[in-house]
Amino acid sequence: MASQKKFAVVLSGNGVFDGSEIHEAVMTLYAINRNNAEYQIFAPDMDQHHVLNHLSGEEMDEKRNVLVESARIARGNAKALSEYLAQEFDALIIPGGFGAAKNLSSFAFDGVNCKVHPEMEMAINTTHKAGKPIGALCIAPVILARVLGDVVLTVGQDQGTTDALGKMGAQAVKTNAREIATDLENKIVTNPCYMLDSSIVDIAEGANNVVKALLKMMD
Amino acid sequence: MASQKKFAVVLSGNGVFDGSEIHEAVMTLYAINRNNAEYQIFAPDMDQHHVLNHLSGEEMDEKRNVLVESARIARGNAKALSEYLAQEFDALIIPGGFGAAKNLSSFAFDGVNCKVHPEMEMAINTTHKAGKPIGALCIAPVILARVLGDVVLTVGQDQGTTDALGKMGAQAVKTNAREIATDLENKIVTNPCYMLDSSIVDIAEGANNVVKALLKMMD
Repeated sequence: MASQKKFAVVLSGNGVFDGSEIHEAVMTLYAINRNNAEYQIFAPDMDQHHVLNHLSGEEMDEKRNVLVESARIARGNAKALSEYLAQEFDALIIPGGFGAAKNLSSFAFDGVNCKVHPEMEMAINTTHKAGKPIGALCIAPVILARVLGDVVLTVGQDQGTTDALGKMGAQAVKTNAREIATDLENKIVTNPCYMLDSSIVDIAEGANNVVKALLKMMD
Repeated sequence: MASQKKFAVVLSGNGVFDGSEIHEAVMTLYAINRNNAEYQIFAPDMDQHHVLNHLSGEEMDEKRNVLVESARIARGNAKALSEYLAQEFDALIIPGGFGAAKNLSSFAFDGVNCKVHPEMEMAINTTHKAGKPIGALCIAPVILARVLGDVVLTVGQDQGTTDALGKMGAQAVKTNAREIATDLENKIVTNPCYMLDSSIVDIAEGANNVVKALLKMMD
């Protein structure tokens, strides 16, 4: 029997408006386990860009650490993204939420001129160069466009974000809920998740489709 | 076609050690939607008992509000538990996590002599008196034992907690992962979730079994 495939999941906090989208993060872990693979959660050890009250939408006068908050989703078992080594994993996945555009990158503020966190950039580059597949959900594909340039990606139907992917050199395709964009040559799989007006069942199916496609690329 | 059944989901924060266990909360929402029902999230508008760093396990010198943190899991759509009206819902569910034993009740500190938050107690009593079913996951069944007394419940295999259920007047049964305890007379369904050394797939299946059993009780 083949040993279990290992996924590295990069989180960006714990809450859709300033961190990882929680349903997408949990459904990614679920998809990995239900396909008989295992996961390790990583997150950068840094302050969040800001902290938003998710009830009122207002900014709160406090600081939270991305790794410490991500550890809530990880039930304590989260590692600093600086410790990620591509050779120890079979695939990398980045769930969405504004944290991908505020903490892992500056896309929410700088658009196509965004910067990507150096540890995230290195994780993507080393994984890609090792010929291993990478998945991204929701808004997280913008990070792959910024780092890798000419790859096939989707962020669903949003024209502005689709245009931004194109301006960063990616080939942007439009997709519906549960549908994935697959770049076989570059081993990239993306799904729009909550970039569309999706249900939590759509998120579960979308994440599952991404994980299944990534596993297929390992054959 | 019958209208969709409506579940009220009571959260106790956002993180296993000081709030709702995130996987259990998300899998409860998923189970409700995949069985063609809808949900509304509620949480008490109060300070958490404390805030724990989920990476180190240490207490943090800050305050967080249970409703505000629960709104992260709810993607903003959470209501104060004081607004819950049994007549507007078909069932009530309480996911687990230490928040159930630290915020919704004082079981983590006072054991069988614990107090239950008055809004939680009223929600349970009004739902039960209206003849509507109630579900609880993980450690949350201790709340039902404290409020309702003589009902059939499970918290998995843990002898100490099983004994505590008995001392509070409940009939405690032992269960394995994914297995539910069903009290048909009192319309109570419980599942141990992470009271056992479960996988996230076990949590998804356990929550789904609870929701399916609750829906059956509405026929």
